[in-house]
Amino acid sequence: MPPKIDAAFAEKVLVRFIRDGLGKAGFAKAVLGLSGGLDSAVCAALAARAIGPGNVLGLIMPYGTAFPEEVRDAAGLARRLGIRSETIDIAPQIDAYFARRPEASRLRRGNKMARERMSILYDRSAAEGALVLGTSNKTELLIGYTTLHGDMACAINPVGDLYKTQVRAMAARLGIPAAIRRKAPTAGLWPGQTDEGEIGLPYEELDEILHARVEGRKTRKEIVAAGHRPAAVDLVLRRIKASEFKRHLPPVAKLSPRSVGHDFLYPYDWGR
Amino acid sequence: MPPKIDAAFAEKVLVRFIRDGLGKAGFAKAVLGLSGGLDSAVCAALAARAIGPGNVLGLIMPYGTAFPEEVRDAAGLARRLGIRSETIDIAPQIDAYFARRPEASRLRRGNKMARERMSILYDRSAAEGALVLGTSNKTELLIGYTTLHGDMACAINPVGDLYKTQVRAMAARLGIPAAIRRKAPTAGLWPGQTDEGEIGLPYEELDEILHARVEGRKTRKEIVAAGHRPAAVDLVLRRIKASEFKRHLPPVAKLSPRSVGHDFLYPYDWGR
Repeated sequence: MPPKIDAAFAEKVLVRFIRDGLGKAGFAKAVLGLSGGLDSAVCAALAARAIGPGNVLGLIMPYGTAFPEEVRDAAGLARRLGIRSETIDIAPQIDAYFARRPEASRLRRGNKMARERMSILYDRSAAEGALVLGTSNKTELLIGYTTLHGDMACAINPVGDLYKTQVRAMAARLGIPAAIRRKAPTAGLWPGQTDEGEIGLPYEELDEILHARVEGRKTRKEIVAAGHRPAAVDLVLRRIKASEFKRHLPPVAKLSPRSVGHDFLYPYDWGR
Repeated sequence: MPPKIDAAFAEKVLVRFIRDGLGKAGFAKAVLGLSGGLDSAVCAALAARAIGPGNVLGLIMPYGTAFPEEVRDAAGLARRLGIRSETIDIAPQIDAYFARRPEASRLRRGNKMARERMSILYDRSAAEGALVLGTSNKTELLIGYTTLHGDMACAINPVGDLYKTQVRAMAARLGIPAAIRRKAPTAGLWPGQTDEGEIGLPYEELDEILHARVEGRKTRKEIVAAGHRPAAVDLVLRRIKASEFKRHLPPVAKLSPRSVGHDFLYPYDWGR
């Protein structure tokens, strides 16, 4: 069984998290990317409940006309939630860069697109005085199926402790349209790409293995004994380990008694 | 007095840090941005010593022809160190974005440029199998004079625990040309911009106050009593506090017993 969630309770916690996170940072508005997929839909719905739909800006950032259904679903969601939305084509910037690099793989192109979207979100954040909400779920974060300084980048992340299967449960509770809830998840890196095809496992199985390892602290042997294929378990464990660097601040060479990222990571006694 | 450094010892530590950092990540090569300024020059010189000049790629990423001296100094440094270098004009991507946003402030434009450079560094990192070295010094990191997901972004940062005045001492030891060591530091956000003009304090004073606060753990009152102007101290303390979010991973709403960024930040017992 994939990990269950109490969606009503999670909704309360996450709405409060968004409200408090904005308040602490001194922001009244939020901005996020709307991909047409599940995670950003859930995040947008939570933000609309937390701070009011008029304070949420959803940016739809397609690469040209490559994914018309995603743009349609994202725009439809924005209308349904009553949030503001804006469509920004990233093709001019992406094409300007890759025109001189025709050999670039589709993975490199996809990562450049994810970082261009981040860069636009932060630019609009500054222009609008709106905090950037993250939409990476726990499954993606744990296996590193996310672009560092791309879709991972945000000021606060409301859905980062929800496995993909739990995001689905949240989406049902929040009334996200079936068109978004039922389609195959995709990072939108290239047409026809699906997360599950690329990762090599269905999300149910992936989440079960992750949950057994991370929350359950099970050994490889125990997870296999519980009925999972050894190859699937090894794939997941390998991906957690290989993506550890994405979940860390970059190591800073330590030379002093108090270093950024080591032992200077918190404000303390600022009043004195 | 600004904080002193034993440059010979620091060189040994930092050369080892770069070598070990690459080794742990499984990389033989490194890539970094060469701005023509001090920090990236020191970082490039350390990298050349650590892994050999032929394994270091310096990317010079000007905005059009806005800063010809910086490009000249960066290219000269690369030749002197014997590292590979390549010049990539970021103007096509930046102009493609801002053509539709003529109202954007120079700060927004500068941040977009910093993020475009990051995005290119990571793209080249993937293409070349080269780890991205960071060049943000401790002064910048502590007062947040750096672009999040821009020049702050890296895989490992050799100079992040060196105050700007200490980077100068390292530069002298490493034989960085006087043209680079003596010019006024600039983030290169717009022509005529200097760090000290924009921050409002000379680096010597800034580093003394930071050092008293961070390593010395002095109170505001003690720092003022030591001879610093109250307005300067307040400026520095305010900036440390206001930029705290840049030195953290983004908060993830906690819902489970083990959450990314909270209590799942390290690999443990992976062998089992």
